[in-house]
Amino acid sequence: MVLEPKKIIIDTDPGIDDAMAIFLAFKSPEVEVIGLTTIYGNVYTTLATKNALHLLEVAGRTDIPVAEGSQVTLTKDTKLRIADFVHGADGLGNQNFPPPKGKPIEQSAAAFLVEQANLCPGKITVVALGPLTNIALAIQLDPAFAKNIGQIVLLGGAFSVNGNVNPATEANIVGDPDAADVVFISGADVVAVGINVTHQAVMTDADRDKLAQSNGKFAQYLCQILEVYFSYHHDAYATRGVYLHDPTALLVAINPSLFTYMEGVVRVQTSGITRGLTLFDNRQKRFAEITEWTDKPTVKVAVTVDAKAVVKLIMDRLMYS
Amino acid sequence: MVLEPKKIIIDTDPGIDDAMAIFLAFKSPEVEVIGLTTIYGNVYTTLATKNALHLLEVAGRTDIPVAEGSQVTLTKDTKLRIADFVHGADGLGNQNFPPPKGKPIEQSAAAFLVEQANLCPGKITVVALGPLTNIALAIQLDPAFAKNIGQIVLLGGAFSVNGNVNPATEANIVGDPDAADVVFISGADVVAVGINVTHQAVMTDADRDKLAQSNGKFAQYLCQILEVYFSYHHDAYATRGVYLHDPTALLVAINPSLFTYMEGVVRVQTSGITRGLTLFDNRQKRFAEITEWTDKPTVKVAVTVDAKAVVKLIMDRLMYS
Repeated sequence: MVLEPKKIIIDTDPGIDDAMAIFLAFKSPEVEVIGLTTIYGNVYTTLATKNALHLLEVAGRTDIPVAEGSQVTLTKDTKLRIADFVHGADGLGNQNFPPPKGKPIEQSAAAFLVEQANLCPGKITVVALGPLTNIALAIQLDPAFAKNIGQIVLLGGAFSVNGNVNPATEANIVGDPDAADVVFISGADVVAVGINVTHQAVMTDADRDKLAQSNGKFAQYLCQILEVYFSYHHDAYATRGVYLHDPTALLVAINPSLFTYMEGVVRVQTSGITRGLTLFDNRQKRFAEITEWTDKPTVKVAVTVDAKAVVKLIMDRLMYS
Repeated sequence: MVLEPKKIIIDTDPGIDDAMAIFLAFKSPEVEVIGLTTIYGNVYTTLATKNALHLLEVAGRTDIPVAEGSQVTLTKDTKLRIADFVHGADGLGNQNFPPPKGKPIEQSAAAFLVEQANLCPGKITVVALGPLTNIALAIQLDPAFAKNIGQIVLLGGAFSVNGNVNPATEANIVGDPDAADVVFISGADVVAVGINVTHQAVMTDADRDKLAQSNGKFAQYLCQILEVYFSYHHDAYATRGVYLHDPTALLVAINPSLFTYMEGVVRVQTSGITRGLTLFDNRQKRFAEITEWTDKPTVKVAVTVDAKAVVKLIMDRLMYS
């Protein structure tokens, strides 16, 4: 039996681990990348678009369209939190890569997402690796989007653990908490992968050395850009090793059985000192009152991961040409 | 060596498990109850005061002063959340007890707390079993209170678990989130015992039967009032058994070694859909930004409990006359 590869759109803010996820997708026969949409996060949206085009040129996959996403949050806030201190000022390890030759398509990210979902209802998976503005805009643009999109796999949230931007919040969710809340209660088939899971998938120094010894095009490229990312992790977490956030989330689309999930309602706090906090209701209590979680659509949240298998799969696919 | 008993003030909203905690204190030679202060929560403050006086009369301890606490939250909100559906309309299992003969002292709870802390600096422990309004008022009344009070052991919060009022919040904290935040960052020696711990200390049906067979005065009284509490737990948690919240928290003052603790900063979300959420910073990451947790005083949070020993100690002390 030959399975048709799963069509995916990667919503991305490249980003060093975004580059890893995009390359991983190209080396994964289980998926076919039908487009990239861009968003602010690790860099501003304009630079994310340039980096997405650049990465497609590195991969020789300029056949894939790039649709530029929102430059502001869902509530039109323009004061964005940009993680250039994690990924370098250029988002790709400060390597002075030449500007890309390609251009984004005319469509906005949200319009592209809606169009693709309508073309193949139930068949497209969005892998969202940044703040969820584009996905929320698609939901607002087309009331049927949540139904027509096959699945939304999102990297975001810190479930029952401290965040990575402050003790309450994870970077992608705090990037646009209002958008995240829209997505979580949209009724779409959402799978959330938070840092409670991705912090278990670590690329060590030894892994990086193995990558450096590979002749693979992607391995060579990644070794060029990884130093900034390792250096940030060393400063922030006092560790030699980096979290494989984005490629781990992508693996949920490729091999969901590497993870276990709980199903329940997730809401996002959108104001105050815990702005961006993701709160999952495990439904173990019958509350006396109607709550903000009551009768909302459920999502799946990744709770455990076969981290050894995840790291091995990412390494294997990125190392070999 | 004869150790002097630890002087404690119990801030309470009786409440069925409050009655257990107060009786437990009377049967514990390690502590000397020097006063009760009252607060809304399980019942309104006026009724809490009546119930506190009633429980002292049941115990034959009318020598102990009762200071009535605030009828409103720290921000003067008068729309209170009262858990009469947990404890009965009278707070004590709907038993139609006669009104108490005694009266509260003239002093407010906050004034009493400040006075006692000044009389014996560093020697008094407050065991706070309800919303933290009185404690926050004492802190506001006297800038030295946080330093002069020996320790504040508080039952409150849901650390890394769902709440019991809604998925985000525990009853005592959501009763007055602003007051709770004041207490957590006051610089006092605070030990917080949340439902992540107290949900492990369960009185079973079998325990209740044992209590019923005891001739002890407190055991007999408690068996009278416990039915409502068991019935609520059955409805809300689909379980036969009740959580020993208040007596478990009291045991932190009596035998702290039954628990383990983590130390760090706790902040309380005071608005939005997760209003009343307690968030503990485990300080495992060096954040790039100044956060609302940065440079705030730390508290201790109970993280594990020898639940078997806790339940046994509570049962043993409440059963025997």
